[in-house]
Amino acid sequence: MADILKKLLKGDRLALSRLITLVENQSDKLAEYMSQIHDSLGNAYYLGITGPPGAGKSTLVNRLITMARQQNKTVGVVAVDPSSPFSGGALLGDRIRMQDHASDSGVFIRSLATRGAHGGISRATRDVARLMDAAGMDWVIVETVGVGQTELDIMELAHSTVVVLTPESGDTIQTMKAGLLEVADIFVVNKADRAGADKILHELRAMLELAPRKSWEIPVLKTQAAAGEGLEELVEVLTQHYSHLKKSSEYQDQASTLRQAELEEILQEQFRKWAHEKLPKEKAFKKTLEEVLSGKISAYEGALKIFPKLIG
Amino acid sequence: MADILKKLLKGDRLALSRLITLVENQSDKLAEYMSQIHDSLGNAYYLGITGPPGAGKSTLVNRLITMARQQNKTVGVVAVDPSSPFSGGALLGDRIRMQDHASDSGVFIRSLATRGAHGGISRATRDVARLMDAAGMDWVIVETVGVGQTELDIMELAHSTVVVLTPESGDTIQTMKAGLLEVADIFVVNKADRAGADKILHELRAMLELAPRKSWEIPVLKTQAAAGEGLEELVEVLTQHYSHLKKSSEYQDQASTLRQAELEEILQEQFRKWAHEKLPKEKAFKKTLEEVLSGKISAYEGALKIFPKLIG
Repeated sequence: MADILKKLLKGDRLALSRLITLVENQSDKLAEYMSQIHDSLGNAYYLGITGPPGAGKSTLVNRLITMARQQNKTVGVVAVDPSSPFSGGALLGDRIRMQDHASDSGVFIRSLATRGAHGGISRATRDVARLMDAAGMDWVIVETVGVGQTELDIMELAHSTVVVLTPESGDTIQTMKAGLLEVADIFVVNKADRAGADKILHELRAMLELAPRKSWEIPVLKTQAAAGEGLEELVEVLTQHYSHLKKSSEYQDQASTLRQAELEEILQEQFRKWAHEKLPKEKAFKKTLEEVLSGKISAYEGALKIFPKLIG
Repeated sequence: MADILKKLLKGDRLALSRLITLVENQSDKLAEYMSQIHDSLGNAYYLGITGPPGAGKSTLVNRLITMARQQNKTVGVVAVDPSSPFSGGALLGDRIRMQDHASDSGVFIRSLATRGAHGGISRATRDVARLMDAAGMDWVIVETVGVGQTELDIMELAHSTVVVLTPESGDTIQTMKAGLLEVADIFVVNKADRAGADKILHELRAMLELAPRKSWEIPVLKTQAAAGEGLEELVEVLTQHYSHLKKSSEYQDQASTLRQAELEEILQEQFRKWAHEKLPKEKAFKKTLEEVLSGKISAYEGALKIFPKLIG
């Protein structure tokens, strides 16, 4: 095992930080490294926090960090959210609050840029979360701004996913209905002191009434993260959900499906890299590639000509 | 050439509709069909309209349809937006307005679901737009709710992309800064009679000041689509952008880059299908696959074992 991995498994922060950089740069070493730490995974609780910009996700994450630390649990945070103070995008007040944790050696925070290939950012997030798991973090919190398909898909890695909304999120609910229902294990209506909080609570509950039943009944909680209200109940529900999950066969099936999807995704990515290098170099493909680039033939026709030779 | 394609090229609506269904179902015939119509493409002006939910995109699209029809131009619309009335998701008033066009044989409207694989929806949108082009539509308008990476990427196919915002879109701008700048050819501040319109106008212009210069200077327009105000100026600017584009070498380079990306994407998708079928069947892969599914080895390790055999 490489030195850096041994250090990681001992919880060395510098090693963790360097390995995350390898993930961001899509290093070729990654496949080997991630394989080697595989047997050291599975200790962390993966918690996803998503919701529209301005829902107060970061404030909530801050509160959760504090509560976990009070229980002597270490916490890793991956922020995939351009508006998050963890990613450097928000109000001064938020940043200062966060800096409390920055000096705490039981907390490790890292942000990831959301630009780049779709599959890329999900995989990077998953790998960073695993590195934190391997480094011995008890909780790994992933914060994403949940406004699009890519962002919601990132949540597949989480044991529990909390969707944070506010009384102003009516439009978001309409737009993301299907996507939100698919990812949410728990709904939180934050800023619950604002007008319209009960209205959105009822809308969510009505939506859940119509959804197909699963063994876990999705709760809808109220919080005021900034004032620290409703947080204890949330942590209580998270604990319930995690122990439900460990007993549930749905979860085992889902885990196996996700593993197959991940395998296919990695194979696909390896194929993409391989093809990208091979196409311009080999005589058999060069002419077809040029015809596609100039628009003489369609990309489909090009692919039909190239594919059988490529896997031949 | 298949009968259905001959009909498509004559503008047969039923043929167009059936071919779009093939796209939605990811039919195996698609590659061949899209190759065969390739030489009949390139007549349509592809216009992208994107922006957050509630920005008034559909009202704007409605107005643009009316204006195009007044110039005797035929219009195809692809709505990739769960909140769009074109997709059946919005207010009764919007739907009624839209039905005016539904009885017009010079207008063809089709919505696409946004669920499914990321690459899938971009490619489906592109193919539906091309089918409309092949059917002789002069304008092909693609409407997406531009709130995430996937949604913005769909806009790559457009000649001109209009990003529609409202005085309330401050948060969106913050969140999507990089993404918006990358896709926008024209910004529109809709509902410009509302408070804060000038503020957002200035914010956008300040943001554009800081962006890298390109040969096309991105204009920021004000509209009130519901009242029909600012629409003529928008159409004028669209015309200017299209003729700028046709002369620009940037566009040619971009087109060639997109074609290569499309080719690689199609190859990748063919590989995925092929691998998905092959993995569970062939003895050489079966054991590794099972080890990944049970979590015994990591997906990365599985891929490292499988890939060399797969392309061998």
